[in-house]
Amino acid sequence: MIWRYNKKAKSNHCKLLHKSKGECVLSIEKKATAFREYLKKISNYQEAIGLMAWDLRTGAPKKGVEQRSEVLGTLSSEVFSMKTSEEMKGFLDELTEEKTFGQLDEVTKGCLLECQKEYKKLTKVPAEEYSKFVVLTAKAESAWAEAKEKNDFPSFQPYLEKIVDFNRKYVDWIGYEGNKYNTLLDEYEPGLTVDILDGVFGQLREEIVPLVKEVTEASNQPATDFLFKHFPSKDQEALSKEILSSMQYDFDAGRLDTTVHPFAIGLNPGDVRVTTKYDEKDFRTAVFGTIHEGGHALYEQNIDKKYIGTPLCTGTSMGIHESQSLFWENFVGRNKAFWEKNYSLLKRYSPGQFDDVDLETFFRGINVAGPSFIRIEADEMTYSLHIILRYELEKALINGELEVKDLPDAWNDKMEEFLGIRPATDAEGVLQDVHWSGGSFGYFPSYALGYVYAAQLKKAMDKDIPNFDNLLQAGELAPIKEWLTANVHQYGKRKLPLDILKDVTGEGVNATYLIDYLKTKYRTVYQLV
Amino acid sequence: MIWRYNKKAKSNHCKLLHKSKGECVLSIEKKATAFREYLKKISNYQEAIGLMAWDLRTGAPKKGVEQRSEVLGTLSSEVFSMKTSEEMKGFLDELTEEKTFGQLDEVTKGCLLECQKEYKKLTKVPAEEYSKFVVLTAKAESAWAEAKEKNDFPSFQPYLEKIVDFNRKYVDWIGYEGNKYNTLLDEYEPGLTVDILDGVFGQLREEIVPLVKEVTEASNQPATDFLFKHFPSKDQEALSKEILSSMQYDFDAGRLDTTVHPFAIGLNPGDVRVTTKYDEKDFRTAVFGTIHEGGHALYEQNIDKKYIGTPLCTGTSMGIHESQSLFWENFVGRNKAFWEKNYSLLKRYSPGQFDDVDLETFFRGINVAGPSFIRIEADEMTYSLHIILRYELEKALINGELEVKDLPDAWNDKMEEFLGIRPATDAEGVLQDVHWSGGSFGYFPSYALGYVYAAQLKKAMDKDIPNFDNLLQAGELAPIKEWLTANVHQYGKRKLPLDILKDVTGEGVNATYLIDYLKTKYRTVYQLV
Repeated sequence: MIWRYNKKAKSNHCKLLHKSKGECVLSIEKKATAFREYLKKISNYQEAIGLMAWDLRTGAPKKGVEQRSEVLGTLSSEVFSMKTSEEMKGFLDELTEEKTFGQLDEVTKGCLLECQKEYKKLTKVPAEEYSKFVVLTAKAESAWAEAKEKNDFPSFQPYLEKIVDFNRKYVDWIGYEGNKYNTLLDEYEPGLTVDILDGVFGQLREEIVPLVKEVTEASNQPATDFLFKHFPSKDQEALSKEILSSMQYDFDAGRLDTTVHPFAIGLNPGDVRVTTKYDEKDFRTAVFGTIHEGGHALYEQNIDKKYIGTPLCTGTSMGIHESQSLFWENFVGRNKAFWEKNYSLLKRYSPGQFDDVDLETFFRGINVAGPSFIRIEADEMTYSLHIILRYELEKALINGELEVKDLPDAWNDKMEEFLGIRPATDAEGVLQDVHWSGGSFGYFPSYALGYVYAAQLKKAMDKDIPNFDNLLQAGELAPIKEWLTANVHQYGKRKLPLDILKDVTGEGVNATYLIDYLKTKYRTVYQLV
Repeated sequence: MIWRYNKKAKSNHCKLLHKSKGECVLSIEKKATAFREYLKKISNYQEAIGLMAWDLRTGAPKKGVEQRSEVLGTLSSEVFSMKTSEEMKGFLDELTEEKTFGQLDEVTKGCLLECQKEYKKLTKVPAEEYSKFVVLTAKAESAWAEAKEKNDFPSFQPYLEKIVDFNRKYVDWIGYEGNKYNTLLDEYEPGLTVDILDGVFGQLREEIVPLVKEVTEASNQPATDFLFKHFPSKDQEALSKEILSSMQYDFDAGRLDTTVHPFAIGLNPGDVRVTTKYDEKDFRTAVFGTIHEGGHALYEQNIDKKYIGTPLCTGTSMGIHESQSLFWENFVGRNKAFWEKNYSLLKRYSPGQFDDVDLETFFRGINVAGPSFIRIEADEMTYSLHIILRYELEKALINGELEVKDLPDAWNDKMEEFLGIRPATDAEGVLQDVHWSGGSFGYFPSYALGYVYAAQLKKAMDKDIPNFDNLLQAGELAPIKEWLTANVHQYGKRKLPLDILKDVTGEGVNATYLIDYLKTKYRTVYQLV
């Protein structure tokens, strides 16, 4: 049969909302209900937008992309309108009045604060500019994918120039304190500034560059030849699904698909999707990539259901989100204890690839570290250097100290400076990441912050779960997921990143734990102790 | 990375539309442009709704379904609002004025007539009732799938009762002429009535019931044992994709997925998706199911691009749509000439299943006909009897002569009456089809009309393409697709079903050609001539 959408529908949301318009006689309770209905409608639009975005990245036919990007533009514009409408202003004005606000429930209070912040920001931005931007980024992503495939930066340059230009203007519209880049940082990591990052990243760089050198020069390098044997995609997929399940990822509330640049997306806590990709010559891409995205997905699947239909029903920041994915990828997935349980599973799915490889050799092999070109395949030791590189380039672009046309060279120069290697192609250099084509500037630092946060969380978890490694050996990952749900997941966006950190660890951003962890781990892996 | 939708968007549609509001000084051209912008917005919403519907049927996680159905409700309600708004009324009033209308382009004229018809209908329906209905049907579909799986009609009955009740009220709201069921028929097949159908279906039934008897009693029955050997899904999928490509289905403008109840859906002409299912013990389900849905998809992929963003960018009726899928499934796919070309292809993908089966035996086998329970697996000879059964039950339900609780028995009685067999379970009886759970009443007759139309189109095509069978033998299907595009596809919804029929065949609905075709074909297959 040919599917036809149902032509016959009208919700009573609208009526409720229209009623609420300007009616100042409404009781506080009715006002709050109308406000929550309004937020529910916005959230429903965002869920539709989210599904379209997932679809665009997991196999939407290319001839439909241009029209689909217009659909995204239309719905995004409606979301923007609702978030900046007179109606929203009315809700905010009425419900944040001191004696009204005090009588509201916690969730509604949180929604009001979030919407107020967003309203102030969004109302500073010219409508047409944003409309153009949304359409631009939807098209830029396909252009990026093609440019990457063909190693053709010039074909992508005009898109990126428009995107950078937009972000520069965005800073002007919103305004900034201290450094222009702070405004973009705030989009992804509220409370973080260039001052803080220069400090944290400075400390990381200072300690890690020598560690990389030490490890690179170590006499006893891990064997890695066994990593690169043929491992069929379908077997990698079956393995990935088993690992996701053991992490307590709920397949009744999600699914696993393939894509160019893996991601996880929470449409609602009952539908949180993971994507991955399979390299038949390197199983690590899928295995660790899936564990990573699975960590993101666990966050979104375990947000308290009371936040559904509100702007609080998502991770609180990119950095905290990344702390979850990296916790699972590194503290669990690259931990020897984890493979004491799962090495036999891996062997069962692989075609004899590991038959004559003992666990110690395998463990050292999957933790091989050193300079490399591709961020998403970088080891946890060098990863933050890949991020610091992007951070410095973005900072320079936004502050007008660097132009897009000079980006490929600037990128390659920094790679040499940080890691002592220079990309032969832009595909393995400046074109490797999807983020900029999606318009995201200020996002990358969250990755390195995720490492820092994750190490801080692990330190705190050790107090509550002293037998962490034993649980991994037994394959009992539930208590670990429960701890993360209790301390991080459940709050959604109701708690700010630095508050979560403070409540769990008692301190602010502190790179020391990550540095200690990396030194201890890699000196062990490289038998330097 | 975790995907975040872009928070920053506002299209200029709204502005344009607000401008147009009430401004009677606008030039005709500006009014028409504003109207088309307005339609574009509606069409964009419908595309988002369509993608969600596709997703719900191709693997959306079940825990997200309830929330997703609310998203569908929200967007559908917006579409309803836009189609019935004062703004729409304003466009219709101003632009259909005689001297204004005459100055408009053909596409805009067609849009106005379509919107006017819909406006009149939709404005007769209570908003809340429709809102409830959309949410109901979204939930009913999951309930149906579960009920079918567990052969548990009572668990589905309350949903179906609400759906039937709604359709009865719908007829009262809209009004009807002659028979209440006519109002529902008009939803899918404008111009068709119970009077016409009783005539056409009567003639079919009169001629086909004896033909079924003749064929069932034929001494030389086709061998079929070779049909039911193990044929791996992945090989069936590869085969299905090759056949779709040979039909000129454009995979850059579509994709093939699996589902419970196969369908095709056109989101826009650049994104028309086909779904199928694989029965490893009967390859015919996938092969002929895919050709069938592929026929629907070719229609949607080849609508003239000038109709994109308008209500005319879809098939003109369910019956004409079905004529396309059935043309490909039966006149091409079950034609001996088609297999003279493709039998070797089939053999290449199957694991030795046909090694000792000659083409004649194969051809007779895939055309085995006779009484069976499942409509979508019925042969083309008995198919229309399955439809006439549903038609009579729907007619009785809508006219209040039958109640849902009595449906299973009524169904089984008619099966015995028409085909001499009685289903052992409701899963292979009244629960077999998705349509009613989706709220569709008046849809089924289109299937039988599709057969009748297809036979009429084939008769007309024979004049232009006398070497039809030679093209199939050569695997040159392009000219056939081109003929259908030229005579049917390109017009989208701009031409009414009976106009298309008139322009191509010179007459109205006529069952004679189908009856002649079936008699000739099945007397050959069963060696009765």
